[in-house]
Amino acid sequence: MGQLTGGDPSLLRRINSAVVLRALRGTRHSSLTELVGMTGLSRPTVEGAVDGLVEAGLVVEVEPEPQDNRRQGRPARRYRFHAESGHLLGVEVGVHRVHTLLSDLSGRLLGSHTRQVAESASAEDRLGLLDQVVTELLQRAGVARDTLRAVGVGTPGIVEANGTVRLCTALPGWTELPLGERLRGAFPCPVLVENDANLAAVAERWKGAAAGSDDLVFVLAGLSPGAGSLINGRIHRGHGGAAGEIGALHLLGLGATPERLLSTTGQPLHPLDENAVTEVFRLAREGDPVAGSAVDRFVGRLVQDVGALVVALDPEVVVVGGWAAGLDDVLEPLRTRLARCCLRPPRVELSALGDAAITTGALRLALDHVEERFSAVGAAAP
Amino acid sequence: MGQLTGGDPSLLRRINSAVVLRALRGTRHSSLTELVGMTGLSRPTVEGAVDGLVEAGLVVEVEPEPQDNRRQGRPARRYRFHAESGHLLGVEVGVHRVHTLLSDLSGRLLGSHTRQVAESASAEDRLGLLDQVVTELLQRAGVARDTLRAVGVGTPGIVEANGTVRLCTALPGWTELPLGERLRGAFPCPVLVENDANLAAVAERWKGAAAGSDDLVFVLAGLSPGAGSLINGRIHRGHGGAAGEIGALHLLGLGATPERLLSTTGQPLHPLDENAVTEVFRLAREGDPVAGSAVDRFVGRLVQDVGALVVALDPEVVVVGGWAAGLDDVLEPLRTRLARCCLRPPRVELSALGDAAITTGALRLALDHVEERFSAVGAAAP
Repeated sequence: MGQLTGGDPSLLRRINSAVVLRALRGTRHSSLTELVGMTGLSRPTVEGAVDGLVEAGLVVEVEPEPQDNRRQGRPARRYRFHAESGHLLGVEVGVHRVHTLLSDLSGRLLGSHTRQVAESASAEDRLGLLDQVVTELLQRAGVARDTLRAVGVGTPGIVEANGTVRLCTALPGWTELPLGERLRGAFPCPVLVENDANLAAVAERWKGAAAGSDDLVFVLAGLSPGAGSLINGRIHRGHGGAAGEIGALHLLGLGATPERLLSTTGQPLHPLDENAVTEVFRLAREGDPVAGSAVDRFVGRLVQDVGALVVALDPEVVVVGGWAAGLDDVLEPLRTRLARCCLRPPRVELSALGDAAITTGALRLALDHVEERFSAVGAAAP
Repeated sequence: MGQLTGGDPSLLRRINSAVVLRALRGTRHSSLTELVGMTGLSRPTVEGAVDGLVEAGLVVEVEPEPQDNRRQGRPARRYRFHAESGHLLGVEVGVHRVHTLLSDLSGRLLGSHTRQVAESASAEDRLGLLDQVVTELLQRAGVARDTLRAVGVGTPGIVEANGTVRLCTALPGWTELPLGERLRGAFPCPVLVENDANLAAVAERWKGAAAGSDDLVFVLAGLSPGAGSLINGRIHRGHGGAAGEIGALHLLGLGATPERLLSTTGQPLHPLDENAVTEVFRLAREGDPVAGSAVDRFVGRLVQDVGALVVALDPEVVVVGGWAAGLDDVLEPLRTRLARCCLRPPRVELSALGDAAITTGALRLALDHVEERFSAVGAAAP
């Protein structure tokens, strides 16, 4: 296998430091002897790495537990990952609300906060509210802003790699907004911006209805349908970031818009009014025939949208989510009709995370970022 | 950067051998001095590697060119990749024909051969014909079967990783045929089986209408529509190998089958008769109004099929191919209507390889396989 020799000695130190940190992140706490066993490194090397990580604030010594005193001699020192030494935020900037989640560096949730916003709010107002929601959340949780290590942000629309929104029809003033750049000024850490449906897909794989699946489609069903997909466990954005933008498929002659299909009055619903959707679902469930027909028409289009994604991608799982309540009624018709047209029909599941899916995915994005840095040579012990 | 030490000395020899072979494959011929310059290896190392590659038959010494004699002194020995030391086959097993291409190890074409087959032919008959076509091609080209180093095979249907056809409605007896296993018995080398539309996508990227693009969709338009896609330059098969199987999308209510849409008589076309499709296209171009309406209906469905793929995948290029002549008429309507429904419309191109697309992709699959082996440590010098 050979050995790395003749290189930068500090490189080797940093690799060892990352290995020890990884071992500690996988356990509640460990002694030096246990770390030697887990890492295969020599005891002096482990000691040196732990000292460096303690100095960097990423590892702390654990207070001895009471029963240790009953044993003979001095108990072995134990160390743990200092997850509370830094914090992560997941943020959803939506049509009607700004929603945030706060966690420590292990992804453990420490709090959440939401504020409603008018759908007509300007970009500046929405950005101002975002800052206010974050400030309030950090205050309530007693967390200092300068302990933030990464922020994930979900937004509707096509998002470029640098966080600029290339196109967004749902939020006023959002198209061409350099969202990433604007937010980077407000936080002491990297800010990662991603399409909302893509983040929901990430979240359902992390702790939702698609846990453990590497190939999945998340469908944001409702008045402005969208979709995000993971292929081999990674977000599929497409050549220009527009993958999954099913919102305009009706222009291909695949049927009318959801707000027309769901109408019970002859007049289309307001295109951003998900409460009206909930109401139509409720009436249909109570047996209202007009609402029932409306839901049937809506499902007809949803089947076509999802069918297009399934035939193109052949995912293992399709997760259906969205803002309106009552979506579980669409699962059975979706399953039945997909089975008819797909050579290999996928599993179809309801979102397990509901309206926390986007923020949860945003938090996972932030967590991925810091975990990558912990594993990267050189990042563990600054 | 460190050095590999303490390992297997033959490992280092084999790595050096692969490096020298790679350098020779990138040039017409080279002297030892030039190889030293290209590889950064020492002259004795290069000499040793070249000797080993000559012994293995992968490299030959080049005869000195006449003008070399005019110079003073003995000309430097020159070496080249022995591309004709082995051969590759690309095979298409289709509804109506078996088509093959033969090349040397550099991918240079040495011949092609086709035989027609009845669409009702049994699997055994089709496999027998495949063997006959290959035998005839090798005989004509004066190439011995035992010089074959890899065979790529394209077939309709869903193909599993081991080369078994999981599902194929177009060829009788083809579903659940262990095609890879059957062919492996007939060839002295690896046989790689792949879905036909996937191979056409590979081919159009290699030397066709999508040269240089890593994100593309190839649409096999016609009576049994199918599609293959590359994402980041690699075939996207989907979770169960069914990605791109657009043939049954009409069951979602996206319109009738192509054989009904293209009918000019009220009776559907025979579902495998691509000549009839060519005839309808010809009549439409000559101004026949009934044929014109038929083509319009056909384009309507094609737009929906392609739109589904584009919205799900967001490719850079869509390449349209198929067996019927006259397909270029569908490009403009396709471009216009995709521009209407896609947030980022792709380029739309006609296949540059026509009915050689599938075999060309199959040949590229075989070439990829041997190139990978040449680069793999240990494979270059046996």
